[in-house]
Amino acid sequence: MAGLSVALIGTGMMGRLQSLALATLPSFFPDLPAVRRKVVVDVTEELAKRGAQQFGYDEWAVDWKKIIARSDIDVVNIVTPNDSHRPIAEFAMSQGKHVLCEKPLALSARDAREMAEQSRRSKGTHMVGFNYRRCPAVLEAKKLIEEGAIGEILGFRALYLQDWAMPDGTPWSWRFGAKEAGSGALGDIGSHALDYALFLVGEIESVSAAAKTIVTKRPRSGAANFAAASKGGTAPTPLPGSNEMIPVDVDDVAVSLIRFTNGALGTLEASRFAWGHKNDLSFEISGSKGALAFRWERSNELHYYSAADRNDVQGYRVIMCGPAQPSGELFWPIPGLGTAYYETQVLQAGTFVKAIVEGRKPDTDFAHGYRIQEIMETMLASAQSRQWTPVSYSLHH
Amino acid sequence: MAGLSVALIGTGMMGRLQSLALATLPSFFPDLPAVRRKVVVDVTEELAKRGAQQFGYDEWAVDWKKIIARSDIDVVNIVTPNDSHRPIAEFAMSQGKHVLCEKPLALSARDAREMAEQSRRSKGTHMVGFNYRRCPAVLEAKKLIEEGAIGEILGFRALYLQDWAMPDGTPWSWRFGAKEAGSGALGDIGSHALDYALFLVGEIESVSAAAKTIVTKRPRSGAANFAAASKGGTAPTPLPGSNEMIPVDVDDVAVSLIRFTNGALGTLEASRFAWGHKNDLSFEISGSKGALAFRWERSNELHYYSAADRNDVQGYRVIMCGPAQPSGELFWPIPGLGTAYYETQVLQAGTFVKAIVEGRKPDTDFAHGYRIQEIMETMLASAQSRQWTPVSYSLHH
Amino acid sequence: MAGLSVALIGTGMMGRLQSLALATLPSFFPDLPAVRRKVVVDVTEELAKRGAQQFGYDEWAVDWKKIIARSDIDVVNIVTPNDSHRPIAEFAMSQGKHVLCEKPLALSARDAREMAEQSRRSKGTHMVGFNYRRCPAVLEAKKLIEEGAIGEILGFRALYLQDWAMPDGTPWSWRFGAKEAGSGALGDIGSHALDYALFLVGEIESVSAAAKTIVTKRPRSGAANFAAASKGGTAPTPLPGSNEMIPVDVDDVAVSLIRFTNGALGTLEASRFAWGHKNDLSFEISGSKGALAFRWERSNELHYYSAADRNDVQGYRVIMCGPAQPSGELFWPIPGLGTAYYETQVLQAGTFVKAIVEGRKPDTDFAHGYRIQEIMETMLASAQSRQWTPVSYSLHH
Amino acid sequence: MAGLSVALIGTGMMGRLQSLALATLPSFFPDLPAVRRKVVVDVTEELAKRGAQQFGYDEWAVDWKKIIARSDIDVVNIVTPNDSHRPIAEFAMSQGKHVLCEKPLALSARDAREMAEQSRRSKGTHMVGFNYRRCPAVLEAKKLIEEGAIGEILGFRALYLQDWAMPDGTPWSWRFGAKEAGSGALGDIGSHALDYALFLVGEIESVSAAAKTIVTKRPRSGAANFAAASKGGTAPTPLPGSNEMIPVDVDDVAVSLIRFTNGALGTLEASRFAWGHKNDLSFEISGSKGALAFRWERSNELHYYSAADRNDVQGYRVIMCGPAQPSGELFWPIPGLGTAYYETQVLQAGTFVKAIVEGRKPDTDFAHGYRIQEIMETMLASAQSRQWTPVSYSLHH
Repeated sequence: MAGLSVALIGTGMMGRLQSLALATLPSFFPDLPAVRRKVVVDVTEELAKRGAQQFGYDEWAVDWKKIIARSDIDVVNIVTPNDSHRPIAEFAMSQGKHVLCEKPLALSARDAREMAEQSRRSKGTHMVGFNYRRCPAVLEAKKLIEEGAIGEILGFRALYLQDWAMPDGTPWSWRFGAKEAGSGALGDIGSHALDYALFLVGEIESVSAAAKTIVTKRPRSGAANFAAASKGGTAPTPLPGSNEMIPVDVDDVAVSLIRFTNGALGTLEASRFAWGHKNDLSFEISGSKGALAFRWERSNELHYYSAADRNDVQGYRVIMCGPAQPSGELFWPIPGLGTAYYETQVLQAGTFVKAIVEGRKPDTDFAHGYRIQEIMETMLASAQSRQWTPVSYSLHH
Repeated sequence: MAGLSVALIGTGMMGRLQSLALATLPSFFPDLPAVRRKVVVDVTEELAKRGAQQFGYDEWAVDWKKIIARSDIDVVNIVTPNDSHRPIAEFAMSQGKHVLCEKPLALSARDAREMAEQSRRSKGTHMVGFNYRRCPAVLEAKKLIEEGAIGEILGFRALYLQDWAMPDGTPWSWRFGAKEAGSGALGDIGSHALDYALFLVGEIESVSAAAKTIVTKRPRSGAANFAAASKGGTAPTPLPGSNEMIPVDVDDVAVSLIRFTNGALGTLEASRFAWGHKNDLSFEISGSKGALAFRWERSNELHYYSAADRNDVQGYRVIMCGPAQPSGELFWPIPGLGTAYYETQVLQAGTFVKAIVEGRKPDTDFAHGYRIQEIMETMLASAQSRQWTPVSYSLHH
Repeated sequence: MAGLSVALIGTGMMGRLQSLALATLPSFFPDLPAVRRKVVVDVTEELAKRGAQQFGYDEWAVDWKKIIARSDIDVVNIVTPNDSHRPIAEFAMSQGKHVLCEKPLALSARDAREMAEQSRRSKGTHMVGFNYRRCPAVLEAKKLIEEGAIGEILGFRALYLQDWAMPDGTPWSWRFGAKEAGSGALGDIGSHALDYALFLVGEIESVSAAAKTIVTKRPRSGAANFAAASKGGTAPTPLPGSNEMIPVDVDDVAVSLIRFTNGALGTLEASRFAWGHKNDLSFEISGSKGALAFRWERSNELHYYSAADRNDVQGYRVIMCGPAQPSGELFWPIPGLGTAYYETQVLQAGTFVKAIVEGRKPDTDFAHGYRIQEIMETMLASAQSRQWTPVSYSLHH
Repeated sequence: MAGLSVALIGTGMMGRLQSLALATLPSFFPDLPAVRRKVVVDVTEELAKRGAQQFGYDEWAVDWKKIIARSDIDVVNIVTPNDSHRPIAEFAMSQGKHVLCEKPLALSARDAREMAEQSRRSKGTHMVGFNYRRCPAVLEAKKLIEEGAIGEILGFRALYLQDWAMPDGTPWSWRFGAKEAGSGALGDIGSHALDYALFLVGEIESVSAAAKTIVTKRPRSGAANFAAASKGGTAPTPLPGSNEMIPVDVDDVAVSLIRFTNGALGTLEASRFAWGHKNDLSFEISGSKGALAFRWERSNELHYYSAADRNDVQGYRVIMCGPAQPSGELFWPIPGLGTAYYETQVLQAGTFVKAIVEGRKPDTDFAHGYRIQEIMETMLASAQSRQWTPVSYSLHH
């Protein structure tokens, strides 16, 4: 296959990270075709130009349709706020392009289902960016589960905890609006925890959830982004004249009980209101013969307990991951040098391009993105109805 | 007040621990009246005698009624399986005795309510043994919450995880029978996690729970106790001829969502099927200004996050507890020497005797024991009905 | 053997702890003879009386010689400042008594050697109180080393770090005087780390050390004890009129390189000036096939790494100690309830009484106490001469 | 300044990492001049070509002199084994090039001094690759020390522990030869720990060290590299016919006591024989008002203890680093996404290019590289003489 040319739609944090991954892909996947960073698109010329310069793209533009339609563009990377995922992805699919879209796939299960259906009908490779499952420690967990190292899965617990939204004065941003984001903590971060559930445990039968908006209004501000909020325990100063308050209509916190089809019981918690947790995505899986635990903030470590160890020396092993773990061999020659966020983006980009080359569906295809969305919507419905609610997919494989 | 004489009913693990506490009480509470270890009662003469010898009691006996009725017995310590708590406690109260009863208070909310009602009508001090709240690190958490150090409480998570019941061959014991124990993991260990919820967060409005029995039959055996199970990854050898299998009709695992009356959302998990967790009682409490976390297996440590710290040096503090924490000053002169299970028993005994001396209700009185029982029963009912269920107390203070 | 009657000399922290151990010994060692807490001795009637009452002794007195000489006293527990260890122990041995003496054994190697020589000539059991080696996690480490689980020992590192002496205003106490204590951090706490070295690794060939006094004068005060210092980051208020400053002539910090006779290289550090470490005694032992690590502040855990584990699941195992570990079966029926300082004192008392009953030398006999003293003196000599210095014992077994 | 063109000499792990850094520099340092990856040089055409393709360079070659001499090459990146650092760097300096050289700078203090002298006489920017000091957590430690947050520094401990060399069958590589590497664990990894000592504490007055070669012969093999060794607990299979054994004449383990000129006492340990430690570079610094601890394997965390905190809530804070820490703002918008090895290389490249642009000496210039070398040589001399040995620099600033 000749090289691939990419259009990047969006220049925020994820735009930067995906560009870093593309810029360094040949070092980790030397056999993949060359990927050319061709055009950056953003809402203003200035943003787009700056993105092109910093991220190493040849051109910049503001009209995403025009760019996507270009015959010299093969791949569309969608890293915009959630409400634009569907229109951009649908247009890109209609043009026969490969698409890598940030999670969550859409604003609603219905939107996601229609995207997944279009994906099924379209040529090209369409993938959702669940990068956290690419981490070598997580892949090792997957491998051990498949080997039967922990036996039958009995229990699952996943937390994704952050605290950047805590300061009252943290300004409103699209992540706080249902129209723009679909849901709050659940979609933004809980979707990754759900991805772990499906990846590591299996299908979900039903859920009982609760959700809550803790800060119900936030000041409008130009500085409403992660970085500004995280720079201080105190909120970023709102812009002059910005004492307008905008309602927050998404969940700040969501918790759910989960029954898996294989009988395991689980819990899931997503919160932007957990002081002391910055990007604390974690899981623990209890099986009949052992257990596995992982915490993103210590992303080099997989914790593994084997009941097959001699009784007096059983204990959770702290495995420092490296070349002995799946995908770890692509990176540094000894464990402990560290694979963190950047490295998961490299692996995601590699997985995506490989799927393009091989012409097959990636593991986190749009159908998968739809499933995640359906489960999240079921959780929020359960939080409303206050009942256990079965998960029912309306897209059939 | 002259000295108090104690009858200990039961010689298992808790009998031993409460006796250690009584034997050493004057070293920690020199101002309390002397407590005489008078009589040990168990189901056989042999057990009772051995208990008396090892735990330092003057006498032993097999008829608890006769002993409790004796005028020279002031205090009755009930450390028997759950199904005998009610008859023994009721008789002791009818005789005007002070009673310290192990948790859970009873087999059902109804039983517990009647015990609490009798307690209200009876003279004497009646307390339930929720020892884990006595730990200095937990008391420090309580103090910080009351001071407002973490602001308004937003979230709560408590886990009590063990793995001693995991080996399939672990023999049946009373902890696996509904008739004997009332419930399984929930009552046995989850009750302590619930105690933390009430102690640290406040009243519970409603719950949505799930529960599961994982191993549904277990071999009858003479060796069915904690110690035997924990000595090996493999189960203790059942006694000869013991291939009879007895059904397990209580929960091995219970999980619940919790809505507190103050608006906080919480989760609680109790499991005897969590490999890698031996006696892992933990909580985390998220507030608007900080957070607190504690884990029993590292009982010397309280973790505290303050959002008031300067932004670049905010982080969970690992406070090594000692004389600077409440009740810690009674023990060792520097932090880090360690206060563990024994020390909580000493503090429980001291609290109990102090309440007797002062003629007031202890914090974990029978009404409190009833509340815990009612909440647990509501959780199990919710697990059946698959609906959020309000907690409704039928005992009024 | 009939029962043993004990005279306790000293009523400080260690007096209390050893008394707790004696009070509860039958619960853990039911087959040992009864131990009667007979007389408490301290420098004032008031202290002695209070000790007797709180620790459960029959009598109190101020004249230790008279008490030790009594024919109804079998055992002498010496828990006084270091400078009185030798006279009391020598007199007790001369009277044919069993002696349990706090560490360090003496003020100097010469003193310790003479005590050890007298011990060899005397009947009775004489033991030094190195309680930290009794911890089940440490005993498990010993067992694994003896089994060859970590192969040949290559490296050793031990730290004993505290911070109670840090506040400048911490008043002078006997622990700061060479005449009273012999040495400072080295003897007070480093001796325990050295005990680990001898217990777990083996004999020491030579050392290169450095030592330092950081705060060279301290205010005289009546409140000069651990407890007072640890209650605050700020120093305890000196008593009125106590602006007299007393020189500190012992080490606040001591560090040493160690060459073991088996070829292993090691380091040892003892400090009372390590903010953030309260009673942080730790070791790590690296072998050719694995490694072991322990930290007192998490005394329930032994960390064990086995290079025999499958490559991708190698990792330090966090073993939560309990009944599966040596001596752990004497305590609580499941791991994780916690064995801390009190429990080591129980095990020490049990070891001592067993040695008396069996008429054999305990592992930490006076000859062992001498060896520790000789090594410490060699370290301080090396710190003076700035040269590697061989350890040479002048007492031959 | 117009763009810079780089020649990369060496295509091993560090060649790859420095190339990743250069490829992504504009994303983090948009204001720096463009850096063109021009030529890769290695010992064979094949290696050089592969490097060029994977790392994104325009050309490849085998004759480093010819390439360095080219007028279109501005910068020389030396990432070869230690024995070639001097000839390449000297030639590059003689041609007026900017040089970034891997640590340790040279095989001996004499070599390093001559390189530093030549650097002083030459135009261009010359820097040594001590990347570990660039980590935001370490920079925060530096900032806190400079602010006086931990007061006067009293103690320092640094460890750099690995275990890749443990398996007996690990083949010989240049890292095991004195002629090729200068020293063993000390130069390879201990140099980074020493860099921390100089960076965070200050100058070193004298040292007392010990060093040891544990495995004295190793099989010759084609696969002698980190990656091969780390893939298994068992050694990589030596190539056929490679039963030739080559002597190891460098230290596998080195330990040292350190006296700093400011009076602080320290210890340093470097080992490739520490099972359970993969890339475990750590330090702890004790001051009069607090303490700081860091461990590379959890590179997102700085641990900070402040004695100014209220007494009952003092504890080591686990600071999850991110945009609030120095240089952290260049990376991800919230803490906890992770900055690991790659990110330190980006910061190193940025520091280097900035120094070039500004025409000033970087912090880790060749004079600094010389100082590290001199101290290491003093340590090895002390290990030989078995005496404390003063550090004496023969290069004056």
